[in-house]
Amino acid sequence: MKIYRYPTKDTWKDLVKRPVLEQKEISGLITEIFAEVAKNGDKALIEFNRKFDKAETLTIKVSDVEIQEAGKQINDELKQAIQEAKENISIFHASQKQEIQKIETTKGVVCWRENRAVERVGIYIPGGTAPLFSTVLMLAVPANLAGCKEIILCTPPDKNGNINPAILYAAKLCGVSEIFKTGGAQAVAAMTFGTESIPAVNKIFGPGNQFVVAAKEYAQRFGVAIDMPAGPSEVLVIADDQAVPEFCAADLLSQAEHGSDSQVVFITTDLKVFEETVEAVDKQIRDLPRNEFAGQALENSSFILMNSLDDALEFSNLYAPEHLILAVSNFERYIPEVQNAGSVFLGNYSCESAGDYASGTNHTLPTNAYAKNYSGVSLDSFVKKITFQHLSKEGLQNLGKTIELMAEAEGLFAHKNAVSIRLK
Amino acid sequence: MKIYRYPTKDTWKDLVKRPVLEQKEISGLITEIFAEVAKNGDKALIEFNRKFDKAETLTIKVSDVEIQEAGKQINDELKQAIQEAKENISIFHASQKQEIQKIETTKGVVCWRENRAVERVGIYIPGGTAPLFSTVLMLAVPANLAGCKEIILCTPPDKNGNINPAILYAAKLCGVSEIFKTGGAQAVAAMTFGTESIPAVNKIFGPGNQFVVAAKEYAQRFGVAIDMPAGPSEVLVIADDQAVPEFCAADLLSQAEHGSDSQVVFITTDLKVFEETVEAVDKQIRDLPRNEFAGQALENSSFILMNSLDDALEFSNLYAPEHLILAVSNFERYIPEVQNAGSVFLGNYSCESAGDYASGTNHTLPTNAYAKNYSGVSLDSFVKKITFQHLSKEGLQNLGKTIELMAEAEGLFAHKNAVSIRLK
Repeated sequence: MKIYRYPTKDTWKDLVKRPVLEQKEISGLITEIFAEVAKNGDKALIEFNRKFDKAETLTIKVSDVEIQEAGKQINDELKQAIQEAKENISIFHASQKQEIQKIETTKGVVCWRENRAVERVGIYIPGGTAPLFSTVLMLAVPANLAGCKEIILCTPPDKNGNINPAILYAAKLCGVSEIFKTGGAQAVAAMTFGTESIPAVNKIFGPGNQFVVAAKEYAQRFGVAIDMPAGPSEVLVIADDQAVPEFCAADLLSQAEHGSDSQVVFITTDLKVFEETVEAVDKQIRDLPRNEFAGQALENSSFILMNSLDDALEFSNLYAPEHLILAVSNFERYIPEVQNAGSVFLGNYSCESAGDYASGTNHTLPTNAYAKNYSGVSLDSFVKKITFQHLSKEGLQNLGKTIELMAEAEGLFAHKNAVSIRLK
Repeated sequence: MKIYRYPTKDTWKDLVKRPVLEQKEISGLITEIFAEVAKNGDKALIEFNRKFDKAETLTIKVSDVEIQEAGKQINDELKQAIQEAKENISIFHASQKQEIQKIETTKGVVCWRENRAVERVGIYIPGGTAPLFSTVLMLAVPANLAGCKEIILCTPPDKNGNINPAILYAAKLCGVSEIFKTGGAQAVAAMTFGTESIPAVNKIFGPGNQFVVAAKEYAQRFGVAIDMPAGPSEVLVIADDQAVPEFCAADLLSQAEHGSDSQVVFITTDLKVFEETVEAVDKQIRDLPRNEFAGQALENSSFILMNSLDDALEFSNLYAPEHLILAVSNFERYIPEVQNAGSVFLGNYSCESAGDYASGTNHTLPTNAYAKNYSGVSLDSFVKKITFQHLSKEGLQNLGKTIELMAEAEGLFAHKNAVSIRLK
């Protein structure tokens, strides 16, 4: 870990920089994969499963039998946990629904917005070291609440051609319409163009490795939307003298275990908390099964002593963390100072894991300083807000002159005429 | 214009296709311009003004004196019109503010969202054939309402190095912080990287030619967000037997005059309205100053006779128009059927010009079928919605087991430990 004691503000610009990730040149490969999927559809996906995932898959679509079998493999305790998480996510995302509010801006001129679901959405769930069924909940629950007509899910098969049962169980529970065994850039291509099995979607959600991220970026050229740009996961913890070093260390490590590229920043105003947190990290990491990832991530992490919490917040806004933990006693006082962050956890008992799984907030959040200009996934991510307006004859009489003057000043006389001809 | 009488549904897929625009290979040029601006800042911009806009500009920033002078050149009638439009846009966009709503998802677990303005936003306003000061209102008014700290505007100078006074006047009136004389891809590059005069921004808004569109797309690689992908402007008009052919024709032409690539679709269920609208278009176009553009746009336009309004709506959803005019008597009945559209205009007196200028809705809308997956610009476009959560000790006790079970099932033991260590 990198330790900074009271760094002066002129050095912050460098401290908030994310390490530059080694970018392999993969754009050529992405283009090829897209072309292949566009041309050969399911056949290409089956071949890519063989090539990239070492899996023999006769069909791409997961069968009802497979989904039923998956349900039997999940024990009741986990089922209940998933159910509770689903309920909290539902409650919080349902609260984001807005009533239609009709506004009369000028007498006879009424404007409003109505939500319409994005009709077809695709969810990508990575395979790999951790079966992220929690991400299924985070994406399928709001998609369902929003009223998306088709919610499909793609995830790579394991070497036996199977999908992790918890992913299948969560998908079924949360109303995913169809599940497909395909991963990587080819899954994104399939959701973009459609294949014999997989319908083309309007918007693609979900995390993934650099191939998936690059493919989602590329897919946008074909009219598909994506949830947001992606980067490695991050947490920034701000602690005062009331913070509990063991808790801070546990939060930092829970971020660090995601992967060797995870970003971890710890800031405190208290020397004792600083030293004890460093110690606690060293101690707790030993028992972690994923301590190799965590150790690599910690090498790039920053532990910073600062003079004041106001400074810490200023630094945090410059960094714009995906997750911000305010382990400070009077956190209410600092909430208005939070300008750039994905999701904020307040006090000593709001660990990031709560939001990662079950408190109700969404865990699909902007990383890599995108919290400066993007929001995390919410119900809004699954709808379009369409504006409507109705002008009565009187309304147009009241507003007509204004429209005519402005259209004329812009040199757009047909725009003006659309009013004039009605007022004649 | 292309005329289709009762086309069968199997042909719709082709009818909703936008004409493929001739795409010049400009990515090399965009890359060069970005590199030049990154390296030479203002100096590069002054040189590009000379090269692309034939303008000598000693300084990039518009002076206070220039802004004051511009105010004198706008007559009081237009000033009043701009003021009225600004008020309506303010009223409608202010109504989009949401109260903070704290939700207790589990006893002791409270979650909510708070809005924070995107700190620095950049507005691009094209030069060219029409001085689009209305777009200044549409972008600066919500930026200001959202609380953006810096709102800058870039627009190309004319050959005398000046900016259209209406643009300057509107910018000043709507709280734009600084205005800069630079256009095209170089303006987008300047807002992305910053120069000596121009601050780097977090998000870039506004329309432009193919260079600006390509530059906005390219800018995203450097962490900047953009309002939405862009394409030529469009209107789809659906008319029943109560529609007024002269009004329909005027609306179609007000779209067509934007440019030769504008998209115009007319659908009616009534043969008389169909024939009279075609006639009215032919008649009205003659008197338009921009009839060359309009004529070219009409060549690609579709005039379609259909059996029912339900069919017309189904077609419209497949096309996903930027603007949809429902010139039908019982439009309320069809509102729920509208699934994909940017902005909808209801009845015989709601002309598109009203929304383009002054009713209060935003005119920055998704084109090119992006209405299937994007919303138009709104107050939301200028804020991030940050989630907050507070778990009391009791809250974590209530939810802890669920989090632990899920984290363990995902193989993320540090995530589990962040809970366990707190519950010990």
